[in-house]
Amino acid sequence: MQAAVLRRQASHARRWLVPMIAQTRHLRVPDWVEPCDKFLFRHIGPDPAEIQTMLRTCSFEDLDDMIAKAVPEDIRLRRTPHLDEPLTESEVLERLKQLGSRNQVFRSYIGMGYYGTLTPTAIKRNVLENPGWYTPYTPYQAEIAQGRMESLLNFQTMIQDLTSLPIANASLLDEATAGAEALSMCFSAHNHKRKMFLLDSRCHPQTEALVYTRAKYIGAKVIKQSWENFEFTSDVCGCLVQYPDTHGEIHNIDELVAKAHDAGALVACATDLLALTVMRSPGEFGADIAVGSAQRFGVPLGYGGPHAAFMSCTEKLIRRLPGRLIGVTRDTHGNRAYRLSLQTRENHIRRERATSNICTAQALLANMAAMYAVFHGPQGLKNIANRVHYMTSALADSIADCGHAVNNDYFFDTIKVTPVGLTQDHIMSRAHNLGINLRQYDDGDVGISLDETVTTSDLRDVMSIFTESGIMEDEDANARLSNLPRRRLGELERTSSFLTHPIFNKYHSETELMRYCKHLENKDISLVHSMIPLGSCTMKLNAATEMQPVTWPEFANIHPFAPPSQAQGFIELFEELARDLCAVTGYDAVSLQPNSGAQGEIAGMLAIRGYLESKGEGHRDVCLIPESAHGTNPATATMCGMRVAKVRVTKQGDIDMDHLREQCEKHKNNLAAIMITYPSTYGVFDESVREICETVHGYGAQVYLDGANMNAQMMLCRPGDYGSDVSHLNLHKTFCIPHGGGGPGMGPIGVKSHLAPFLPGHVMTAEGHKFRQVSASPYGSSLIMPISWSYIRMMGAEGLRMSSAVAILNANYMAHRLKDYYEVAFRGKRGCVAHEFIVSFAPFKKYGITCTDVAKRLQDYGFHSPTVSWPVPDSLMIEPTESESKDELDRYVDALIQIRHEIQEVMDGKYPQDDNVIVNAPHPQTFVLAEEWTRPYSREKAAYPVAFLKEGKTWPGCGRVDDAFGDKNLMCSCPPMDSYDA
Amino acid sequence: MQAAVLRRQASHARRWLVPMIAQTRHLRVPDWVEPCDKFLFRHIGPDPAEIQTMLRTCSFEDLDDMIAKAVPEDIRLRRTPHLDEPLTESEVLERLKQLGSRNQVFRSYIGMGYYGTLTPTAIKRNVLENPGWYTPYTPYQAEIAQGRMESLLNFQTMIQDLTSLPIANASLLDEATAGAEALSMCFSAHNHKRKMFLLDSRCHPQTEALVYTRAKYIGAKVIKQSWENFEFTSDVCGCLVQYPDTHGEIHNIDELVAKAHDAGALVACATDLLALTVMRSPGEFGADIAVGSAQRFGVPLGYGGPHAAFMSCTEKLIRRLPGRLIGVTRDTHGNRAYRLSLQTRENHIRRERATSNICTAQALLANMAAMYAVFHGPQGLKNIANRVHYMTSALADSIADCGHAVNNDYFFDTIKVTPVGLTQDHIMSRAHNLGINLRQYDDGDVGISLDETVTTSDLRDVMSIFTESGIMEDEDANARLSNLPRRRLGELERTSSFLTHPIFNKYHSETELMRYCKHLENKDISLVHSMIPLGSCTMKLNAATEMQPVTWPEFANIHPFAPPSQAQGFIELFEELARDLCAVTGYDAVSLQPNSGAQGEIAGMLAIRGYLESKGEGHRDVCLIPESAHGTNPATATMCGMRVAKVRVTKQGDIDMDHLREQCEKHKNNLAAIMITYPSTYGVFDESVREICETVHGYGAQVYLDGANMNAQMMLCRPGDYGSDVSHLNLHKTFCIPHGGGGPGMGPIGVKSHLAPFLPGHVMTAEGHKFRQVSASPYGSSLIMPISWSYIRMMGAEGLRMSSAVAILNANYMAHRLKDYYEVAFRGKRGCVAHEFIVSFAPFKKYGITCTDVAKRLQDYGFHSPTVSWPVPDSLMIEPTESESKDELDRYVDALIQIRHEIQEVMDGKYPQDDNVIVNAPHPQTFVLAEEWTRPYSREKAAYPVAFLKEGKTWPGCGRVDDAFGDKNLMCSCPPMDSYDA
Repeated sequence: MQAAVLRRQASHARRWLVPMIAQTRHLRVPDWVEPCDKFLFRHIGPDPAEIQTMLRTCSFEDLDDMIAKAVPEDIRLRRTPHLDEPLTESEVLERLKQLGSRNQVFRSYIGMGYYGTLTPTAIKRNVLENPGWYTPYTPYQAEIAQGRMESLLNFQTMIQDLTSLPIANASLLDEATAGAEALSMCFSAHNHKRKMFLLDSRCHPQTEALVYTRAKYIGAKVIKQSWENFEFTSDVCGCLVQYPDTHGEIHNIDELVAKAHDAGALVACATDLLALTVMRSPGEFGADIAVGSAQRFGVPLGYGGPHAAFMSCTEKLIRRLPGRLIGVTRDTHGNRAYRLSLQTRENHIRRERATSNICTAQALLANMAAMYAVFHGPQGLKNIANRVHYMTSALADSIADCGHAVNNDYFFDTIKVTPVGLTQDHIMSRAHNLGINLRQYDDGDVGISLDETVTTSDLRDVMSIFTESGIMEDEDANARLSNLPRRRLGELERTSSFLTHPIFNKYHSETELMRYCKHLENKDISLVHSMIPLGSCTMKLNAATEMQPVTWPEFANIHPFAPPSQAQGFIELFEELARDLCAVTGYDAVSLQPNSGAQGEIAGMLAIRGYLESKGEGHRDVCLIPESAHGTNPATATMCGMRVAKVRVTKQGDIDMDHLREQCEKHKNNLAAIMITYPSTYGVFDESVREICETVHGYGAQVYLDGANMNAQMMLCRPGDYGSDVSHLNLHKTFCIPHGGGGPGMGPIGVKSHLAPFLPGHVMTAEGHKFRQVSASPYGSSLIMPISWSYIRMMGAEGLRMSSAVAILNANYMAHRLKDYYEVAFRGKRGCVAHEFIVSFAPFKKYGITCTDVAKRLQDYGFHSPTVSWPVPDSLMIEPTESESKDELDRYVDALIQIRHEIQEVMDGKYPQDDNVIVNAPHPQTFVLAEEWTRPYSREKAAYPVAFLKEGKTWPGCGRVDDAFGDKNLMCSCPPMDSYDA
Repeated sequence: MQAAVLRRQASHARRWLVPMIAQTRHLRVPDWVEPCDKFLFRHIGPDPAEIQTMLRTCSFEDLDDMIAKAVPEDIRLRRTPHLDEPLTESEVLERLKQLGSRNQVFRSYIGMGYYGTLTPTAIKRNVLENPGWYTPYTPYQAEIAQGRMESLLNFQTMIQDLTSLPIANASLLDEATAGAEALSMCFSAHNHKRKMFLLDSRCHPQTEALVYTRAKYIGAKVIKQSWENFEFTSDVCGCLVQYPDTHGEIHNIDELVAKAHDAGALVACATDLLALTVMRSPGEFGADIAVGSAQRFGVPLGYGGPHAAFMSCTEKLIRRLPGRLIGVTRDTHGNRAYRLSLQTRENHIRRERATSNICTAQALLANMAAMYAVFHGPQGLKNIANRVHYMTSALADSIADCGHAVNNDYFFDTIKVTPVGLTQDHIMSRAHNLGINLRQYDDGDVGISLDETVTTSDLRDVMSIFTESGIMEDEDANARLSNLPRRRLGELERTSSFLTHPIFNKYHSETELMRYCKHLENKDISLVHSMIPLGSCTMKLNAATEMQPVTWPEFANIHPFAPPSQAQGFIELFEELARDLCAVTGYDAVSLQPNSGAQGEIAGMLAIRGYLESKGEGHRDVCLIPESAHGTNPATATMCGMRVAKVRVTKQGDIDMDHLREQCEKHKNNLAAIMITYPSTYGVFDESVREICETVHGYGAQVYLDGANMNAQMMLCRPGDYGSDVSHLNLHKTFCIPHGGGGPGMGPIGVKSHLAPFLPGHVMTAEGHKFRQVSASPYGSSLIMPISWSYIRMMGAEGLRMSSAVAILNANYMAHRLKDYYEVAFRGKRGCVAHEFIVSFAPFKKYGITCTDVAKRLQDYGFHSPTVSWPVPDSLMIEPTESESKDELDRYVDALIQIRHEIQEVMDGKYPQDDNVIVNAPHPQTFVLAEEWTRPYSREKAAYPVAFLKEGKTWPGCGRVDDAFGDKNLMCSCPPMDSYDA
């Protein structure tokens, strides 16, 4: 009896691992003590029996057989690289608690673009900790993304109002990147003809670093000086000033703007949203561009990110605005609808002609910031700003009264103090003893930035630091707080109103805010509803355990420039994550700084350029890019000052080796690199990847391998082994960081050892080279790295291998089931697809049905479409990931098969080509419920093509959006209320 | 300039408080340093301007004027009682962290019905921390509660399967209460004629205490002995045994059952769900009743609760089953639907003839436990059970090998050890040093209960406690773990299968589980969608900040019988909460033990009985109850051994003073108490409450004031001041604990000082009298008390006063707006309603339209109905609460007005009385989308009677449920899968 029970139990545990993994697995303890909350069993969608069924369906003997057929022999790993033994969910939480306890949460008054903030718990709970908000994808499928687009439109409106500029995008990666984008904007606005860009010497140092980095490779020249000394010669394209500046001083830049505009140059202004609630805005000065961070609007410090930066500009510059832009348009029924505007600006369309390679935004954080503004409203924000300002004023008086020199005439929340009678060291040490971080200047000064978290007792502590004795009595403190301090904004008080739209003036109670959050959430399709099999995007489970530490204060409340001694838990976690990513990729070193795939590409290409320069081959500037590459690749190469040479691909999606050799030969003197994706963007394990790498190396050039498809490779093959020199890794794809409805992403890069010296550095840490800094903070979006770390630690080496194997199996299973209905366009040499595959819809075009129609029709089935017409026109690219169960795969396949029947009805003439259930899709609820029904098919056929929808359906929020109308009648802020009367 | 800004800011802060509060408020610090995250501004729905508008609309001068009109002069407070100054949201979280840090989280292996458990984080995040799950109401409105009823049906099915009994309810308050209910069931099954109940001496002591308490007042006699000695005379109605027993031993009770049944007695078995996955079940022994707790299925210990207890029974006993029972029925369209079954059993219908006063279940916790079973599935649960069992077996061997006597022959997870060579003190002290709690027996023995959280290193720690040296080397520990221990279940191995229904066999990946949680959530209406103005239920904001500590480990992971030294944070919080509740109610002492309003009523009535007995007036046993009372009141009185005498109410809902005096006079020799509700259940501040209390006191009796309507009184008037002796306080109404979709609730009682000695005690704390224990754990549902504590601490005295004032204003505003359309049935002397009001629908009956029809029609508007036909037939009772904004009140009023127009159309003959939009309501999506439409009105009229619904509508999950059909064809477990094919 006992033995039988044991065997059953053990076999339950082992079935998963047989035959692929068992032989490699050494059990340290007997099965009966093995914990029951192992994560592997929960992350992988299909259960062992289903895996067997699917293998049989696809005629694979077992997973090893499948891998042998999918992954080319010459790159396949023979042995699984070592990772630590997997932890269970409870163990990983325990370990995270330990790591967190090694971080020290000081009160950080360092400023420099990062401020303490009080995240309203209602926003924390209902947005940040809610998978309904953090698991959706970028809102390309507008009709099922109306909720988050409304929120992003609120963000844009908030930025427009506060900066007084008419156009704002839906967020950028960080303030420093936004500064670099401002440079690019000025540069491109003058068609790259005016080479000089003036940079005020009082910008935040990290912004300065990114401006220098960007300028270097696009061919601009940065001149850094006080803006008062700016000379606008005819070669100057624009300038960037910080307002309030990094030392807290605020300047009237009326004259600067006049001077610049007289000379035909643009003025960009880095600024602070909270300050703008009480101070004149950049737009009011006449500035052309404003940039900054929305972090202090309720987004935790997180040791550097993720946060939503912003960029706003004049209408004239709109087509040069990088990133996502939400706009208002109408749908086919004439109703208002939101969608991404002016996508033609973006690099997935403009490719090497794009001025920016940005494709990730920081949607989740932008939504939090927008909700913060919705919750507080204009008066609430002003109250917060005034309180911070008065506190800073009281502090300045107190410090001056102690005999120190406060260097600011006018300021909002930040002062720079020259100590008198006390040394900087003395002050820093007193602050440290109180658990307070101040800014330590090289010139001996001390900077202090207050924020909304500051209490009267915090203020007293800061005041006490500057007294002779280091003590401030209650009595003295109270006396200092008993009178209203002076305002220090001088002539820069804001008089104009902002956030007057009703949306910012009605949700001020928690009940109203919660309902608004839920109302928007429930309009959209996310992973909480159904699978989102977006080819190349890897929408897999973002497990609740992985997400826990994101809202723990010991990770969330650390300033990025706090001394490393206060972030030991983070640093240990970074080291382990980097080590594990090396093991997974075969690289020798990893930089965690890039906070998006696009930034990773820049960091990687800069490493290549740095390496080539170090060998005296700085002239090499040609980058080969296959036609089938992600749009970011050519845009990145251009941004890094490279010339792009295309390489043709075969009909199979493989790189055309003959053409590759031809191009190598043609550019042999200047060949710098090739950028490839593996498995290819066609979803195939190209057999020649090793040969490609060798060929390019043979010409003295480097291989950049886009890591977007890493989910097909974990522990099966490694870029670092088969010849790549550098890759970025989309942690938000393969490594479980959620997509956040369009960001945040994370794009660390891995490199072989020869490139390691050329990884990004950071101006505040004095490591590496300042011209290669790619993010505002040293470790990019630190706060979300525990997500990827947890995933790897809970899966272990064999678990990761299982992830990739099941991802491939799921794709092959779907391809198998679909093959009798659709053409699966590309397969590898042995008939397998990789972790994704392409289904062609070209055959149906002549019947008036496009793949876009099918994508929209899928919405009627409650599904998000796969990737549309990329990389192959008239196709859908399907990537199911390992987290989807067989049931869900079958449900999706059944929907596609049903759609095939619907297509057939059109082909057979049963329904007209211009009036059928597919071309009219999606069918929103209001439409199918309308009094009048004139379609040739029934309402039920429109709304309930399959039975499971009757149990609960996520409806499209509108009919098909009219993109052309929206781009022609551009409106990118909250529409006036009277337009809401439908 | 500065002065102007300051004035604006200050006036923004003050407007709220003028004129009602300003004069009473002393600002300690000037406005400019006041924090910006004050809670008052977020909890109260209408903003100051809206409050002014509403006051004007109702012709009140200001809030004080309104209060003067609503609250009788002779009870109105002249000065606001003192509470600590309000804390902001961030301050309260800080304080909670401090309190939490005073709790010590030991590993508790005490057992006794409470076990460590691993709450799957996906359940924690998507159920426990999700307002979509914790804010809905009890599923009386079945059509908009299909999601949580499906989950509760899963709970019932799980209990049925594991106990092998055909009927189970949707949870009870705690295991001890369930034990007492088992006694009541046996007693009533024999029509109270068999007086004796046999209680095994190895039941958990807290269960024993509640059985004794219950027995005493219903007139049963408990005989406690080992079940082996039970003698089933003809006077025995039933017996209760614990399996496994409280010492861990497991017995074959086949013979006991046979003996009992031969004698016509019933057998109840207290049991453990995890054990039952590997052990023979009570039903398999032939037991008639099983009770226990589902806590260890993923519900945190929480220092005692809330947890879901269960009760299952044979079909014969179904009509005696207390609590909620979910069943399957059909809707008007013939589709499957869920609803509450057999409501005729419940006390709101049976009143004093009810056998139980229970009306709250523990729905949220039952749902968590059900999801835990759904996630793990039968095999996963067995794996957990086997692991716990093997670990306990290994531990028993190790302890025995150290020379101690393990007293158990057969056991599952618990052993009782007689130490040899070491004293109990020595062992307890070693355990304490390791951060481990064991059970300390009075007889010198030590009890140990293992659970799923136990790791191998935990096990080694426990083993080491019993070695001579107190140390166990790694080597020894590993040796002990290297072989499979013996199974110790003897002949009691379970061979039958369980949880075979597909629902328990498909959601084992986190993705599937998350989607299932969200799928069910999105079927139901909760506070995240719209207001739920249920009269007498006070559905107000459950703020995210208040909810935070519920899932903090320092509160969640403490065993209820851990030494008080480990719960100092809790105890401090309890003391503050009790102190504040005294200030709010005017009572002198509070007991936090009762974990529902119904338990509070029992505790209160027992206090009265105890007090009377202490005065030698134990014969007083008549309880006066107005006709309009909550159904729990007469049921409670009966359970406490009282005779109920009704008091008539006037047409205005006031108590008929003449009849009261008449009844007092009639029962003067035996008058024990009166139970009243204030403001009355008719929503009116009765002018004579003080006189009522004085009258009853004049006859030597006590006043029990039902605290359900406390939300109308906070800091306006106090029961303790105007004559009440005791009240329960529904913390889940007035004090912000969420309703959880039907529980948990909390019902502390407050008493005047003369009753304080008769408050509940607890067998484990040796305080008070064991016959007055009403909950299994000393402080009831400790884990949710921080919610109420936070609310009070953030609102402060003036904030609570504002809450009640705005609650009254909101009700008066709605009543005012509705008065031209409907008859507002009752108003106070000066024309005001209290915090709720009754709208009569009697006039429409002759047109075939009932208030139930209107309640269903409201679902089509996306709203939850007010309370239906209680306390007045053919009426709706509306209680908006202070958290609803003017916009939301208007939306709801507009819906009711629109429905009035729809009624008019029927009255005017435009639509037939038996086929119109109201009597056919609700209209589910599938119905309005059906191919065929034969209604005399349009689909749009059915589905979109008002425009805002087009922006997003929460649909009823089915057509109107057929209650009669369901009760006739009773099915109370998951329906077979083939029935799912609609």
